[in-house]
Amino acid sequence: MSSALDYAKQHADTFHRNLLDLIRIPSISTLPENKKDIQRAAEWLIDDMRRIGLRTHLYSTAGHPIVYGEWLKAGDDAPTVLIYGHYDVQPAELEAGWMSDPFEPEEKDGKIYARGSSDDKGQVFAQLKAVESLLASDEGSPVNIKVLIEGEEEISSLHLGAFVRNNPELLRADVCVISDTGMQSKEQPAIVYSLRGLVYMELHVQGPAQDLHSGAFGGTVHNPAQALCEIVAALHNPDGSIAVDGFYDDVLTLSSQEREEMARTNITEDRHRQTTGVPRAWGEPGYSLREKIGARPTLEVNGLLSGFTGEGAKTVLPAKAMAKISCRLVANQDPERIYTLVRQQVERLTPPTVRSELRLLHTAEPAFADLNAPAMHAAVAAYEKGWGNRPVFVREGGTIGVVADFQRELHVPIILMGFGLDSDGAHGPNEHFHVDMFHKGIDTAIHFLKAVATHVRRATG
Amino acid sequence: MSSALDYAKQHADTFHRNLLDLIRIPSISTLPENKKDIQRAAEWLIDDMRRIGLRTHLYSTAGHPIVYGEWLKAGDDAPTVLIYGHYDVQPAELEAGWMSDPFEPEEKDGKIYARGSSDDKGQVFAQLKAVESLLASDEGSPVNIKVLIEGEEEISSLHLGAFVRNNPELLRADVCVISDTGMQSKEQPAIVYSLRGLVYMELHVQGPAQDLHSGAFGGTVHNPAQALCEIVAALHNPDGSIAVDGFYDDVLTLSSQEREEMARTNITEDRHRQTTGVPRAWGEPGYSLREKIGARPTLEVNGLLSGFTGEGAKTVLPAKAMAKISCRLVANQDPERIYTLVRQQVERLTPPTVRSELRLLHTAEPAFADLNAPAMHAAVAAYEKGWGNRPVFVREGGTIGVVADFQRELHVPIILMGFGLDSDGAHGPNEHFHVDMFHKGIDTAIHFLKAVATHVRRATG
Repeated sequence: MSSALDYAKQHADTFHRNLLDLIRIPSISTLPENKKDIQRAAEWLIDDMRRIGLRTHLYSTAGHPIVYGEWLKAGDDAPTVLIYGHYDVQPAELEAGWMSDPFEPEEKDGKIYARGSSDDKGQVFAQLKAVESLLASDEGSPVNIKVLIEGEEEISSLHLGAFVRNNPELLRADVCVISDTGMQSKEQPAIVYSLRGLVYMELHVQGPAQDLHSGAFGGTVHNPAQALCEIVAALHNPDGSIAVDGFYDDVLTLSSQEREEMARTNITEDRHRQTTGVPRAWGEPGYSLREKIGARPTLEVNGLLSGFTGEGAKTVLPAKAMAKISCRLVANQDPERIYTLVRQQVERLTPPTVRSELRLLHTAEPAFADLNAPAMHAAVAAYEKGWGNRPVFVREGGTIGVVADFQRELHVPIILMGFGLDSDGAHGPNEHFHVDMFHKGIDTAIHFLKAVATHVRRATG
Repeated sequence: MSSALDYAKQHADTFHRNLLDLIRIPSISTLPENKKDIQRAAEWLIDDMRRIGLRTHLYSTAGHPIVYGEWLKAGDDAPTVLIYGHYDVQPAELEAGWMSDPFEPEEKDGKIYARGSSDDKGQVFAQLKAVESLLASDEGSPVNIKVLIEGEEEISSLHLGAFVRNNPELLRADVCVISDTGMQSKEQPAIVYSLRGLVYMELHVQGPAQDLHSGAFGGTVHNPAQALCEIVAALHNPDGSIAVDGFYDDVLTLSSQEREEMARTNITEDRHRQTTGVPRAWGEPGYSLREKIGARPTLEVNGLLSGFTGEGAKTVLPAKAMAKISCRLVANQDPERIYTLVRQQVERLTPPTVRSELRLLHTAEPAFADLNAPAMHAAVAAYEKGWGNRPVFVREGGTIGVVADFQRELHVPIILMGFGLDSDGAHGPNEHFHVDMFHKGIDTAIHFLKAVATHVRRATG
């Protein structure tokens, strides 16, 4: 009798090749010019899911479509697992430092170099191939399966919240598993139990009505690029803490137990310097690097634009300046409230010589997972078998907005079971994914689905 | 017998039409993609000058070519006038707020709307048409004429300095006249006797080795866009004065006579608000608007660039940030010294958490003209006849780098005889030039060349 693990082993090359095909589709969700690629990636997934035996549907939204598939033949008594992932990717410009075309996967030293290889195509595809291996093998799946793959994760899941709210029955499950996180080393799997939220804003500063000659007017007009720098600079205190009135009010104090647990996965200054290339670490005093990333909020400049930025010189006094600013938020902080606080601070900081506006682009709530849920035990058991090591529990600095939506709307325990590495370069140039982690991910996901059948009780309807 | 003024009147339409042809050539000196347009504009001028009877030569340089023409048949005893101007223009992007294609002149209410219409094609072409009118009419030119039109004025005359140094004999003249400045109102001509210098720099701040995920690293890495804002903000004091140690050391104190003279052409806050559109004027305390523009140095941000600047959101922690920064300098300040002072200040302001570099792009010295030179009297007389009004003397905030070169290398009195308006929108969108000022400029330039013959003595070889 052939097992799901056997099937995965026999089809390892095919799975690998198919992943490369998916990666080649430049499904960048934030750029309008990639809209047809988004559609193509969604349809590619629908075809693959249908082929392996799921009943599929492509849900259109006001934005990018949602890929959905289900297999419910395990019976009414078996628990249902909702697998979530995303097929959209971050933008990737060759000039940002890529060594090869970000959408033509290049393999080197056992790694696949391409945008989306780790975040999230490689990881969600591992889940999908685990489902295929169970369904195609003689053992079959002991749990009912629902798969939801969205196309707007990198733009804060703009339309998924409403979809989840409007389809609680469709998405009802006993466990939700998400593979979209990383671990610190290949040997040490990690389960993320805390994620930061996000509020993304745009600061616009307007000076003169139009660009002026810096000779004819320089010295009499408050340069909006300078004024913007003055406002942005004043949003932090010299010690690296955030200088927005009320910003930290709702942040929970870390207990000594939490600090102890976090100390186990702390990052050394040396390792941090190596990973990032910065001359010295930075940040709020009084917290370890892991605590800064996992348990403290931030205020980050994601982009700056003003005046003449081409090669050479243009003596322009620009009319306006723009900064993209985002805050990562921790549990108990409310994105809308933080936006209001930052807006009020910007208003206080804006001198009467310019005009400013802080626009809200979008928000995502911070999220927590329950360490004592039975599904968590299933995940620990799965990693032990599939990866060969007991996982650690970590707080992550990133944001998966949908986690908070799922918790709120579906009341389902969520397991963040990553198959990537923190150093995979997600969102940066030369993003990559280890081929052997892809295959270990498939095995671990198979073990997880089987472990859920024994650990998790079916919710009473 | 036909006079030069008659000729100019008879050919007004042709002159006007020819000017539009010259304006249509997008001779943007700072953009590599416009290199062939630069060449085309230079050749267009060579053809026109040859046609009107000048002996011409196109001098190539390491950058853009220099257009030269001469007519020396007034004889050894007659003085020689060197006319300087530039055929290159600033960049112009339609999106910056232009109401029509910047290189397809649009005429409205007696004004030609196009990049370069006022700065400097319209003005230098008026000089050229004055020469044509004299040479083609029965009266002929009473002075020898040399015409030098460069293609790099908007990029700080990168190669003209060396050309002037290497060709003192070719360029020797008794007067140099430049039409590249503005007046406050159409009725009130102005002679500029002081210009600011320039030092143009690029500030680069490097944080991590490459773009990072703002969730995975935010809060532990000094964001280079934020660090750049902090450095830029610290280059000014809260009162608007420049916070660079030693910056004002060499600035000469204004005498009470100078302040009195400048008060005559002062700009009211109301007019300043109307012209610029800013909610309130800004700048160093203790100086009038005219003094700030004409007699005080500045430090200006001309451009900002970092991270993601497209539409939408990208939660990137950028690897680097860049600011274009330039200082307008006043008499007695040395551009190289100011660059060193700013560089040292940036070094002091750079925290150990990022790396910074301040690059020097180019410099131009500030310049002064002698109010008592005989050529100045000729200019006053010419404006009185050609414009119908006695000119005022003003200090300008802009920079014409070559003025300092001419003074130093050729020891020639320089007359800055503008035919434009301060409100022509040079360097900004919707630059324009009044058609009647073009024609009055031609008449005034004719009067000037004739007045030089009577006021200015030929220099002894």
